[in-house]
Amino acid sequence: MSSTRARVSLLSIGDELLLGEIVDTNQPYIAQQLLPLGLTMAGSETVGDEMDDIVAAFKRALSRADIVIATGGLGPTDDDLTFEAVARTFGVELQFYPEVMEQMAARLKRSVESLGGSNLKQATLPKGSRVLKNDWGTAPGVHFATPENKHIFLMPGVPREMKGLLGERIIPWLREHFPCDTCIAIKKLHAFGIPESIIGERCKPMMQAGHNPNVGTRVSGGVCTVRLVAHAATVSEAAALLAPCEARVREALKEGLFGEDEDSLQSATVRALVERKKTVAMAESCTAGLVASLLAEVPGASAVLIEGAVTYANEAKIRTCKVRPETLAARGAVSAQTAAEMAAGIRERAGTDIALSVTGIAGPDGGTAEKPVGLVFYGIATGAGVETLERKFLGLDRNLVRERAAMQGLDLIRRAALR
Amino acid sequence: MSSTRARVSLLSIGDELLLGEIVDTNQPYIAQQLLPLGLTMAGSETVGDEMDDIVAAFKRALSRADIVIATGGLGPTDDDLTFEAVARTFGVELQFYPEVMEQMAARLKRSVESLGGSNLKQATLPKGSRVLKNDWGTAPGVHFATPENKHIFLMPGVPREMKGLLGERIIPWLREHFPCDTCIAIKKLHAFGIPESIIGERCKPMMQAGHNPNVGTRVSGGVCTVRLVAHAATVSEAAALLAPCEARVREALKEGLFGEDEDSLQSATVRALVERKKTVAMAESCTAGLVASLLAEVPGASAVLIEGAVTYANEAKIRTCKVRPETLAARGAVSAQTAAEMAAGIRERAGTDIALSVTGIAGPDGGTAEKPVGLVFYGIATGAGVETLERKFLGLDRNLVRERAAMQGLDLIRRAALR
Repeated sequence: MSSTRARVSLLSIGDELLLGEIVDTNQPYIAQQLLPLGLTMAGSETVGDEMDDIVAAFKRALSRADIVIATGGLGPTDDDLTFEAVARTFGVELQFYPEVMEQMAARLKRSVESLGGSNLKQATLPKGSRVLKNDWGTAPGVHFATPENKHIFLMPGVPREMKGLLGERIIPWLREHFPCDTCIAIKKLHAFGIPESIIGERCKPMMQAGHNPNVGTRVSGGVCTVRLVAHAATVSEAAALLAPCEARVREALKEGLFGEDEDSLQSATVRALVERKKTVAMAESCTAGLVASLLAEVPGASAVLIEGAVTYANEAKIRTCKVRPETLAARGAVSAQTAAEMAAGIRERAGTDIALSVTGIAGPDGGTAEKPVGLVFYGIATGAGVETLERKFLGLDRNLVRERAAMQGLDLIRRAALR
Repeated sequence: MSSTRARVSLLSIGDELLLGEIVDTNQPYIAQQLLPLGLTMAGSETVGDEMDDIVAAFKRALSRADIVIATGGLGPTDDDLTFEAVARTFGVELQFYPEVMEQMAARLKRSVESLGGSNLKQATLPKGSRVLKNDWGTAPGVHFATPENKHIFLMPGVPREMKGLLGERIIPWLREHFPCDTCIAIKKLHAFGIPESIIGERCKPMMQAGHNPNVGTRVSGGVCTVRLVAHAATVSEAAALLAPCEARVREALKEGLFGEDEDSLQSATVRALVERKKTVAMAESCTAGLVASLLAEVPGASAVLIEGAVTYANEAKIRTCKVRPETLAARGAVSAQTAAEMAAGIRERAGTDIALSVTGIAGPDGGTAEKPVGLVFYGIATGAGVETLERKFLGLDRNLVRERAAMQGLDLIRRAALR
């Protein structure tokens, strides 16, 4: 990794973000858009609508970065302070920009004279600003070069306006003025059913600090994602660095590997079904439609998902899946035998290649020493017969049990499709 | 508001956040939970998994706050650096905490001896740490008091573990050690089916800056939430300020009002069914189990949710809901007539008081000029007969159409239960 790469810091300004009223999706969006430019992300920060805090935040951001990209605080109201904060940070005056007023008037289809004081405020920028024309809203974007030749970019916080200004005004400028001296190649690999700690041990040598490619793991919903980021002088060198490392990670993930990059467990499951020309149905008790709903998130799922049954009540299990009342009486609704009969029953009803059943105890009530909250049985029925699986998702609340149980159900469908 | 209130800064640690691969929902959650404590939010920051950056971020956070709450970087892998970063920040050693190892072993139902080096790492904390027992995962929470008597709290980034540690370990401690010198009373009211702009107009006088209680609105998933925050010297004064304002907001929300504070549309729907002793079944096409799954999120849903049918394929609509093939041929699967027959059919099959059907075009394909992506028909069947509703969720992607469609379905069940 070259140490001469320019560093970027992001700054979000607004009480509504700082107080957690809305989730900031601008920072992750900007970070993802900047990634291919080969700049280094130094950090990102959020401050409220307080002048002193905003000035301090700009100083902090500039102390660790060459480029600061800030969003928010450009509106017409009294708590919009970003222009003034930048002016104070550098001891420059605010200056009226007639061109901004004209652009606002044109956008609002009004005369300049008819615009009010709040628009005047939006057209009054730190002296020395270069205006970034905003074709997506009224507040102007601003590029301000500091005396130390660092660069501040100011954008509205409205995602649509931010996206327009970033893509059309800022990224082209950065590409020209900070040409990439290192090229980046990124690969993400996703696995299900292997603990992160085991993946970490298998990939340990590649996860050392300074290793190129840089390798990291994260877990979400039972899916472990390994991310590889290679840096090199050229695209082909970066790809060449990535390839052997990727092969080793694939080996470490083994049969748990289900997809790469933008794949999800649900999209990989639908893809497996489509590729193998297999149809699926499911009978869900504790997950109550979540497996079906996750599959239906994937465009094209209708080609493989025939029918789902949410058999929450025992009478529904009997009616729709032909579970025998004796089984429910002798083994209980949460049992391997009930799961097996549910899977066989829904497969026969729907006439599919594969059928999944899920029955478990999501909690918070209903658990016993023998059958604790988090206990889930699966049935997977195919032309070869019915198999069952017992899993325990312990220590989780009701909806995490259901979510994890549904993800495991998807993986069972995926593996059955590939057999 | 007193200016002596303690200041809090949040820090999120992780490349996946800094690089924008995942959106950080922890910071807004923590900020919202801290709100009633009357602390001042100084700012929040995100850094990647680089030792120098993390150390610098802790120093920055401590320079502007008395309390720093950090998430992430406590995992077992080599890129989890938070404990070491805190130790470096204060020049203290890392120390092995046997109690943490024992807690991890108990949680994993293994012996201490069988745990690997990655667990040893998770049990090695900055010297002087107070362990916050994590009953929601393996990595311990940590409370570290600095030489300047400031306080650092470290939690895993996994939302479930963070929420447990924050609510059970950190907030009670903060409440005791940073008692609030101004009292805050908060009320949230939730409505469905009324546009935010109309609510904003009706509540306009209360939404002016400086109004006490402070009143704000936000929208998520079709639910509009109005939040009222009253500040006063005593709890009873704050409550007295809140009461008349709350009454006016309730009046503004009218029949759209479904709940308050921690209520969700799903919990309000289950509550309406339970209170009115009514059972429900549903036949879902485009939502594919999402309505059933949302209801099942609520503990106790099993008392009212009898059966759901995911009738994705036309043959499933015919088989399970007795939709007439002629209806499908003449009107199409996405039509008011099909919705009506689905609702009547699933109600008869399941023998419930109320039945809902949902059929629509989620996209991205399948839309036409006459039946665009986002068009959804509902049937709601009760003892009084079957009604249908047509809604258009335009300009949304596949899963937002499905999500919004499912929320509308819940509201139809809720209103039917209350009739």
